[in-house]
Amino acid sequence: MKEQTIDRIRRFTEDRDWDQFHSPANLAKSISIEANELLECFQWSDDDYDIQHVKEELADVLVYCRNMLDKLGLDEDEIVNMKMEQNEAKYPVSKAKGKSDKYSDL
Amino acid sequence: MKEQTIDRIRRFTEDRDWDQFHSPANLAKSISIEANELLECFQWSDDDYDIQHVKEELADVLVYCRNMLDKLGLDEDEIVNMKMEQNEAKYPVSKAKGKSDKYSDL
Amino acid sequence: MKEQTIDRIRRFTEDRDWDQFHSPANLAKSISIEANELLECFQWSDDDYDIQHVKEELADVLVYCRNMLDKLGLDEDEIVNMKMEQNEAKYPVSKAKGKSDKYSDL
Amino acid sequence: MKEQTIDRIRRFTEDRDWDQFHSPANLAKSISIEANELLECFQWSDDDYDIQHVKEELADVLVYCRNMLDKLGLDEDEIVNMKMEQNEAKYPVSKAKGKSDKYSDL
Repeated sequence: MKEQTIDRIRRFTEDRDWDQFHSPANLAKSISIEANELLECFQWSDDDYDIQHVKEELADVLVYCRNMLDKLGLDEDEIVNMKMEQNEAKYPVSKAKGKSDKYSDL
Repeated sequence: MKEQTIDRIRRFTEDRDWDQFHSPANLAKSISIEANELLECFQWSDDDYDIQHVKEELADVLVYCRNMLDKLGLDEDEIVNMKMEQNEAKYPVSKAKGKSDKYSDL
Repeated sequence: MKEQTIDRIRRFTEDRDWDQFHSPANLAKSISIEANELLECFQWSDDDYDIQHVKEELADVLVYCRNMLDKLGLDEDEIVNMKMEQNEAKYPVSKAKGKSDKYSDL
Repeated sequence: MKEQTIDRIRRFTEDRDWDQFHSPANLAKSISIEANELLECFQWSDDDYDIQHVKEELADVLVYCRNMLDKLGLDEDEIVNMKMEQNEAKYPVSKAKGKSDKYSDL
């Protein structure tokens, strides 16, 4: 996300004095709630979805994730790279290629 | 997210030939599943959470969001700015300041 | 659910002195968390699921729903019938038959 | 749930010819979606919730759980008792009393 977009999200919260509601726990609930509004786009069909609706709900998930990164003072690239390192170790190409099994079943 | 981090996520999927599993519907399920692993960090307490665990689960949400952006050919900044414009209109500062009400109740 | 099964769930909570953790909000989180462990059974495939795993996760959802009914002093049949009355009005057979549209789109 | 309530739920689905949409995977998504509408009642506050809204959303979760039990031919008491047996073993009173730790941390 560009710095300008991040700033817009931060200003939105500040202007409304909403930081008081953004406890990490409330943001975790919010990410799940928005993730399920996204899931609702696919509730009865995998293929027949409204792309505009998908964009809006995915954006909502991303905004709350950004709020949480900010709240906890986390760097997105740092935590994603830390997790990708774990994932690369848990799912070695030789074992995981072409398979959707969980690492514990590989 | 930096281009380098995005590339790492893409390579991870490609190397494992996992694009076949990444239908938008499956990614929507995955975002919700990971969002709930994040929520589990706060299941019984708002304050007593394991920050390392939070980082890992938030990273998982972000990785699946990136997978979905890629799958649908979406630009993160574009959809977030589009949604922020909607949010700014739905929650005018004059009405929403200091309140956690849903826009329909403002 | 039979009275005997309900009693077993209540005794389980009492014996462990867990009522203190069962705020309505924590139970709502728990229902969502378990619902997503159920969803995980279908993460990458609609058809290739482990029925034993499905049974266990669905049971977990039902147990937390029972905890919430108890916590709030609700009668399951009463709230389900109240909601079914709403659903029957929102989705008249003449309009909804054979369609998966949301009532607002019918 | 009383047999009469269960019948009402079944008739609702049959009258609308909706069984075609009720794959186990779609019902798992639906349970998660409704669980998150329930969670939304507690998004910004643990205590200041609308009890009527809570009743409606909890009822929706229960209805979709009933749909899934029916779809898979499962007996609610059987699966709940099976799971409670597992829970009783995973959380012995002597270790779990008064603690909200996950069994793997006890």
